[in-house]
Amino acid sequence: MNEFFFPNSIAIFGISSSPGNLGIGILENLERFSFKGDVYLIGEKGGSVRGKTILKGIAEVPGIPELAIFIIPAKGIPGKLEECGKKGIRHVIIESGGFSEFGKEKEALEKEVLAIAKQWGIRILGPNCLGTVNLENGLVLPFVRFHETFLQKGGISLISQSGGLLHDILLLLSCDNLGINKLVSAGNKLMLDECDFLEYFASDPATKTIGLYLEDIKDGRRLFRLATSTNKPVILLKANESSGSSQIAQFHTASLAGDDLIADNILCQAGIHRVRTLDEMISTIKIFSLPLMRGQRLAVIARSGGHAVMAADAVYRHGFRLAHLSQDIFDLVGQKKRVDVIRATNPVDLGDIFDINFHYTILEKTLKENGVDGVLFIHSYDLQTDGDATLALIQKINAITRVQPKPVVFCMLSEKEQWFNMKDGASFPVFSEADQAVKALARSRSHFRRAAATLRASTVKRRKYLMTTNVSPHTKTSFLSPAKAFELIRQYDLPVADYEVTRNFEECRNAAQRLGYPVALKTALSGILHKTEKGGVRLRVASDSSLKDAFNSMEPGPYLVQKMVETGLELIIGSKLDPAFGHVLIFGMGGIYVDLFKDIAVRMVPVNKKTALRMITDMQGSAILRGYRGNPPYDLKAIANCISRISKLLIDHPEIVNIDINPLIAYEEGKGCIIVDAKIETAL
Amino acid sequence: MNEFFFPNSIAIFGISSSPGNLGIGILENLERFSFKGDVYLIGEKGGSVRGKTILKGIAEVPGIPELAIFIIPAKGIPGKLEECGKKGIRHVIIESGGFSEFGKEKEALEKEVLAIAKQWGIRILGPNCLGTVNLENGLVLPFVRFHETFLQKGGISLISQSGGLLHDILLLLSCDNLGINKLVSAGNKLMLDECDFLEYFASDPATKTIGLYLEDIKDGRRLFRLATSTNKPVILLKANESSGSSQIAQFHTASLAGDDLIADNILCQAGIHRVRTLDEMISTIKIFSLPLMRGQRLAVIARSGGHAVMAADAVYRHGFRLAHLSQDIFDLVGQKKRVDVIRATNPVDLGDIFDINFHYTILEKTLKENGVDGVLFIHSYDLQTDGDATLALIQKINAITRVQPKPVVFCMLSEKEQWFNMKDGASFPVFSEADQAVKALARSRSHFRRAAATLRASTVKRRKYLMTTNVSPHTKTSFLSPAKAFELIRQYDLPVADYEVTRNFEECRNAAQRLGYPVALKTALSGILHKTEKGGVRLRVASDSSLKDAFNSMEPGPYLVQKMVETGLELIIGSKLDPAFGHVLIFGMGGIYVDLFKDIAVRMVPVNKKTALRMITDMQGSAILRGYRGNPPYDLKAIANCISRISKLLIDHPEIVNIDINPLIAYEEGKGCIIVDAKIETAL
Repeated sequence: MNEFFFPNSIAIFGISSSPGNLGIGILENLERFSFKGDVYLIGEKGGSVRGKTILKGIAEVPGIPELAIFIIPAKGIPGKLEECGKKGIRHVIIESGGFSEFGKEKEALEKEVLAIAKQWGIRILGPNCLGTVNLENGLVLPFVRFHETFLQKGGISLISQSGGLLHDILLLLSCDNLGINKLVSAGNKLMLDECDFLEYFASDPATKTIGLYLEDIKDGRRLFRLATSTNKPVILLKANESSGSSQIAQFHTASLAGDDLIADNILCQAGIHRVRTLDEMISTIKIFSLPLMRGQRLAVIARSGGHAVMAADAVYRHGFRLAHLSQDIFDLVGQKKRVDVIRATNPVDLGDIFDINFHYTILEKTLKENGVDGVLFIHSYDLQTDGDATLALIQKINAITRVQPKPVVFCMLSEKEQWFNMKDGASFPVFSEADQAVKALARSRSHFRRAAATLRASTVKRRKYLMTTNVSPHTKTSFLSPAKAFELIRQYDLPVADYEVTRNFEECRNAAQRLGYPVALKTALSGILHKTEKGGVRLRVASDSSLKDAFNSMEPGPYLVQKMVETGLELIIGSKLDPAFGHVLIFGMGGIYVDLFKDIAVRMVPVNKKTALRMITDMQGSAILRGYRGNPPYDLKAIANCISRISKLLIDHPEIVNIDINPLIAYEEGKGCIIVDAKIETAL
Repeated sequence: MNEFFFPNSIAIFGISSSPGNLGIGILENLERFSFKGDVYLIGEKGGSVRGKTILKGIAEVPGIPELAIFIIPAKGIPGKLEECGKKGIRHVIIESGGFSEFGKEKEALEKEVLAIAKQWGIRILGPNCLGTVNLENGLVLPFVRFHETFLQKGGISLISQSGGLLHDILLLLSCDNLGINKLVSAGNKLMLDECDFLEYFASDPATKTIGLYLEDIKDGRRLFRLATSTNKPVILLKANESSGSSQIAQFHTASLAGDDLIADNILCQAGIHRVRTLDEMISTIKIFSLPLMRGQRLAVIARSGGHAVMAADAVYRHGFRLAHLSQDIFDLVGQKKRVDVIRATNPVDLGDIFDINFHYTILEKTLKENGVDGVLFIHSYDLQTDGDATLALIQKINAITRVQPKPVVFCMLSEKEQWFNMKDGASFPVFSEADQAVKALARSRSHFRRAAATLRASTVKRRKYLMTTNVSPHTKTSFLSPAKAFELIRQYDLPVADYEVTRNFEECRNAAQRLGYPVALKTALSGILHKTEKGGVRLRVASDSSLKDAFNSMEPGPYLVQKMVETGLELIIGSKLDPAFGHVLIFGMGGIYVDLFKDIAVRMVPVNKKTALRMITDMQGSAILRGYRGNPPYDLKAIANCISRISKLLIDHPEIVNIDINPLIAYEEGKGCIIVDAKIETAL
């Protein structure tokens, strides 16, 4: 991957001296950022541009460039790629668009490109992208103009699926004086995807914080592994939330958990900081330029009562506590108060103390308090009277944030004319208001907590799981017959209510008598999915004559006679084959709990018993399972066993697209649980 | 109220020529904003300042100033106020602090001030405030410096309980070129509160949009009435969310609905746009500078695929739909596309069309589509190549937003250096990103919907309700005995499970036999609140001998023998005496629904049957009540009757602090419902 960021020599395909030539943008960017490596320009018409000769083909280039960049019409790319292969070039960026982003009819072209790349062992970034940027060596490869004004050097590296969004993020980061290290615009991700670059950035010593903009996740499991194996903050703006919502879900549990909900759950489990807006992304990146928040005790210092109140709201809203401050702090504040009454409270209201220098003294002392994990400092000032003092304050905070292991979260608003000037001197992030700052700080807090937990978890070996990503919404599928579904489930020692498969009334009656009334009579025809709605199920059949009635009302075909089980708590276990994360397990309480309250827990397969237990306690309604209001708890162990066995079943059967165990009836502790109905959909 | 905004003459108390004198700030502000009325300066030491004589007392002022402003130490205020009264001054602003905001010991001073004001018929704004601002006549009364840079004239009037927050809101509005009309800093609200000024602004022709920052709501019912009787957008940043959370709730339903949740519900019902952050406040104010969004069909136009995807997410997230666009639009787009494939979709991806002029043509045409209620236009540009074209685009949008009845919601990010310059030419709001814009647009949509509904509702007379705000957390209260509680409830034709009050075992047995087993035996002692936890309840007592056991296990004292009712669905009806809104009714489903899912509905008393029915359908779990999965519906009418009768009971009994009907057992349609237990707390 190094060649994409530290190439000694590069060749740019698609340069001409005609106005409007996009390739020139790349050359200009390289010049603007003083890239030192060799740059060869290639364009069929030759000539020269900006004092550099345009070579007519790759053959004219001396030696083998480490990296080629294509900004030529899509249809010409296979030919040029072939030439690159022959020349010995092994790293290529295709910036040109006109591929699969324009529809399925262009997929053939992508396949052709891929085949050539594989033949020559070429690694491709793109197509339809802006390439890479590395501010360590001035490698700035986008064809659109990148200006130094919004590209200062720092520790943030970004991976973006959209050039437009990348540009936005850069503008916003520069507004907050946050410096960039490396950038990747991943485009259509034909070959290299976000995980390849995330892996590179995770081990890149110059990258401190990693930001991603993605519209789809190529390999969710690899993303999960990579995120859990680095302590660098990974901040993900995952768009395209509604992509999967058009699919009509035939499976109950699957329909409960849309793709985005699944992604949300699993990204959270991976410790990835998922954000939903640019604003939230910038705030989150900002907070990680400060020391991590190691506890929940926050001190608030503000110049106005209103700011203090708003800050206190934010503190509680985002799960922090107002720290208990020692009397020393209040004694200090008391030295300068004009009004005789000092309110010895956190937030510390600076009220009528107009000496900004002294505000800093209070901040410094508060930060050193043992009972304080971080300080939220809300500054406000009048430009004419307090401008210089504010600049001095910022200098002092610059100094203290360099030596203190606790975060000072600084909020300030300025007049329009001074909005950016006043912030320019700050080497720490400046937030606009308390809520934004404290919300970001909660990410810092969770990151700190997780960093410790992850180190422990990394010693646990993950069971190998083979993704079957070739199952797409277009894959043909079929449903196992009820009998086959039960059979498969029973092979995994899962408890299924006793049943027999029958073909005619006599067999039904015999089965019912053997099993003992009451029984349920169900159709065992394949492909009847919503049995209840279609009259394919008759419950609580209590006698031979009722059985006869039930039998007569049902479509002919194989039947399933099943022992009615005792009533208990209805649960559901489902699975879904997610395009990004592979098999995921969904667990919830049945009936109203899932229908009305959408109360479910989601995990990637494999799920062991311990994780299964955590799924149970994850749910809002888990109190019911654990024994609600003096009722005995349900048999959590047995339920967890079911979940983990379904997980095993899924690993052994990658062809399964969906499972729906609904209901699983749970009984009180020691009395187990039992599966009453199950549907299984498999890829053909 | 006019005198607070259009005084012909004003007197400022507390002026001196010494450095650091706060009163000078007022004078400077008035000069800076060219206030034309007479201004008299008053200070005991006399002298002069800025070329104006300082009078030594109000007696020296010729005529009677229409408005006096105090910025003198708190303790001196009663004396000066008295002098003002004698002089004939009837409108006073007290900007000085040092009153109740510093603790209870200062309340006496406030009472003294209030008494003098009442004696002379003086109306007071403050204390502890910044006074008023009116940009129509240059009346700028804050003692802190207000600069023209952040005070441009426009149609927004603000009421703020905090001077600091008011300053912040002004800075942020000016960053978006939004103009101000009038301002009020309400401070401690000793006499005049937000409602007085809201009423004034609602009828002020120059005020188009009203913003409020409040830390407490003085009279929630008046606020509700005022908000529902104006079509001007009212945007409220209500802070101090956690103020009530420290109270230990003894009542189940009351504990479910914290003060902030109640406020949230009722403000929403009033059509008040409650916001929680400054950022959200500014966005909401911004959106109301555009025509209202009259439908849910939004067209999105963007220059990059990433922006289009993010926008589509925002569209769905905030309850809009992507409008269906006619082929004309795609034909137009097709005219300039370089790549041969046109995706005929909304969002319209401008892709490789670099002609910004043409982007406008597309916008204009899209806005005129019949199937489009509004357009979200996401612009991005490179400063060097597109800067001028962007400015021209902004001019054109200025023009079209003046004539079109549909909103054009414009998003744009710029480089830091141009951040504000580029926006300065826009007479429409510029948003940073789609989510922020579309979220605000949803407010516009709901405002439009509500405006129509409110007009209908305003013809409905509201039943008079007398607030009993004198009940504070410090009010002494007591609990009615169970028997008294039932008695009171029965007076309102509420169905209570049959019971008898008894004193000894014999009476208990006789009562049980009369009522018929099974019965419940409960203690009827006053003051035992959590009967179940304290062994004061024995349910399902089925025989004389079981009754004996139950009787023996219970504390002596009066007993209540109650007929066990059939099992049904457990509901709860509760009330809470809210300091801002008076009696509010809380309705929820019992047990797990409220405990685990916090599923409740809240309304202010009075609640008629129609509103009661709406409370039922408001709940997430209302599907259960309406007949879940083929089950018969519960008796909604009977439930609604209970709710509205409790409302009547509360109106007749303002001394009641809390009622807790828990459970109310509901049965299927036509079979009614029945109260099994009730607690009532009254003020002593």
